[in-house]
Amino acid sequence: MITLDTPDTPFVVVDATRLDRNIQRLQHHLDTLGVPLRLHVKTSKSIDVARRVHADEPGPITVSTLGEAEYFADAGYRDILYAVGIDPHKLPRVAALIARGVDLTVLLDSSAQAEAVTGFSREHGVRIPALIEIDCDGHRGGVAPSDPALVEIAQILVDNLAGVLGHAGESYFAYTPDALRKAAENERDATVGAAHVLGIAGLPCPVVSVGSTPTAHSALDLAGVTEVRAGNYVFFDLVMAGLGICTPDDLALSVAVTVIGHQPAKNWIITDGGWMATSRDRGTQNQPVDQGYGLVTTLAGQPIPDLIMTGASQEHGILTPRPGTTHLTPDLPIGTRLRILPNHACATAAQHHRYHVINDASTTPVIDAVWTRHNGW
Amino acid sequence: MITLDTPDTPFVVVDATRLDRNIQRLQHHLDTLGVPLRLHVKTSKSIDVARRVHADEPGPITVSTLGEAEYFADAGYRDILYAVGIDPHKLPRVAALIARGVDLTVLLDSSAQAEAVTGFSREHGVRIPALIEIDCDGHRGGVAPSDPALVEIAQILVDNLAGVLGHAGESYFAYTPDALRKAAENERDATVGAAHVLGIAGLPCPVVSVGSTPTAHSALDLAGVTEVRAGNYVFFDLVMAGLGICTPDDLALSVAVTVIGHQPAKNWIITDGGWMATSRDRGTQNQPVDQGYGLVTTLAGQPIPDLIMTGASQEHGILTPRPGTTHLTPDLPIGTRLRILPNHACATAAQHHRYHVINDASTTPVIDAVWTRHNGW
Repeated sequence: MITLDTPDTPFVVVDATRLDRNIQRLQHHLDTLGVPLRLHVKTSKSIDVARRVHADEPGPITVSTLGEAEYFADAGYRDILYAVGIDPHKLPRVAALIARGVDLTVLLDSSAQAEAVTGFSREHGVRIPALIEIDCDGHRGGVAPSDPALVEIAQILVDNLAGVLGHAGESYFAYTPDALRKAAENERDATVGAAHVLGIAGLPCPVVSVGSTPTAHSALDLAGVTEVRAGNYVFFDLVMAGLGICTPDDLALSVAVTVIGHQPAKNWIITDGGWMATSRDRGTQNQPVDQGYGLVTTLAGQPIPDLIMTGASQEHGILTPRPGTTHLTPDLPIGTRLRILPNHACATAAQHHRYHVINDASTTPVIDAVWTRHNGW
Repeated sequence: MITLDTPDTPFVVVDATRLDRNIQRLQHHLDTLGVPLRLHVKTSKSIDVARRVHADEPGPITVSTLGEAEYFADAGYRDILYAVGIDPHKLPRVAALIARGVDLTVLLDSSAQAEAVTGFSREHGVRIPALIEIDCDGHRGGVAPSDPALVEIAQILVDNLAGVLGHAGESYFAYTPDALRKAAENERDATVGAAHVLGIAGLPCPVVSVGSTPTAHSALDLAGVTEVRAGNYVFFDLVMAGLGICTPDDLALSVAVTVIGHQPAKNWIITDGGWMATSRDRGTQNQPVDQGYGLVTTLAGQPIPDLIMTGASQEHGILTPRPGTTHLTPDLPIGTRLRILPNHACATAAQHHRYHVINDASTTPVIDAVWTRHNGW
């Protein structure tokens, strides 16, 4: 029997009970709003995780790289949105996926990209569906709904126009339920508003796509929206807990590590899990509560009060009591295994090639499965 | 002919001309000091890079994971130091490498680890050479040379004792030549001092191992030292440039990216190279000059004055003029390829599975080779 005591550390653990709970929670919320989910697979990059969402057959997904699109296409996924602004150089790979029968949609926000897509489309006799990225809140790319460029781009796209897409980047900085709800409303309003602008101009806009993990959970009304994208929510992480979207008890991804040393004079416990295992992501650094590189639990997943990973070199983690706490450093001898709940699931998962899957919370959980993931572009 | 314009971005580039220059520089310095190098392979994790250092036959190396040890053993490397404190659970893998004929040395700094090594060694009839980690400056693990634990651990190890190892963690915060030289002296003094303590106690200490990239380049005298470890120097990075160990023109590792958007009102250029391509490492954040996520060059490697990567999401990079500069955002249309010089070569390289190798600095350099690397544990 293989347990969390078996593989050499560090390795990454998925708690499938929490994973399924997270999946059901968002599905239930979107069911009540009557809008389908387009799972973003950039967090897990795993067919096995996607299958927990799409139990019966492959469903619609969002990808962040063409490598993900190819990996999921190989597993039978046919409805794929590549949600990073298209680099014209990548159009041959896009066309190759479409030629395989994949309904692959690209994203863009400039006339130059629209001309590249239209030109390639005409030259190669292939329709490349494209969404126009809408800038909701100034956090990344996109055109504002009121920007004349919106209609100009749509007019260049002609038959390739498939709709509009918004992403509420501001939601990652929204620390109250009210702020989160407003970010969701703003995301919807901007994106639906852009669709209206296209409609007035007589341009078809069948797809109105919105989403981020915070707004997907906070939206109360998605009228006019045709799909919601979310990805991080399958695992959640400390950044999401810091926003109040989940609690640390919902975190389905963690890193198993082993105590390899102590510096008692400094209250340090040293582990074999450094930033190579957790990533360098310090996403809670600018949140109200800085969680260092992560919260520490026992191997069974019980939180150890106020013990956090405060330092990291490549293959060393440093655990200390949270600054200001009255908790003492616990006595954890050499060889003790622990788990680290990470800041950012997308970044931590990307440091690994496979997931060790547990379903229980016994003292030494059994590893029931090993799931693979895709890395690279 | 494959050039830097050929593969889809993002991908990581190694400038072999700079790589060889960096390798020769340190080799020359250590030759004058009369101490051999034990290459740390944790930065490149690549047989192909190690072969530029060891042109004739595999030489002594340092690894940060047993996965690296196994990968290099498969390529014929036989003298390997595993320089992360040993987790007793990993001793069967250590013994398996020794059984294959690898001279594998482990590292430890506690009686508990020494007892585990000695117990395993006796039980399985295998000598496991162990170095005792010496704490030079309070930055990680190790025992101080004056700590009675040093002799106690050595006495537990008996025949497994191979020597002592020091690593000047403080050198990454030493911003003047004088401070760097002092860090190197301190690293040597502490480590050689520990060897003396063992000698006085009648305990053998054949290996006196020191090193970090900053101290390896700054040491003026290594009397008593038997080997120097360094790894980052093959590529160098902006953290090392910030310490004055190299200049940005020495950086041999970079990430090729493509412009996929603009937000002119914010002076943003958006690329397809986000933190997945550069890593989340912000190592220059606390240096005198914060380089964001990296410096921007043309595809040919010419620096673009004061253009830096200031923001990153998973697959998006944001380039802006350096805050406070008078340089305007250059006109870089959609599809323009650029390169990013990273903060931390070890972390950036770890985001990739292969290196695209160039040797020239023409407008569109030719890719002469693709080198692989090992990831995982």
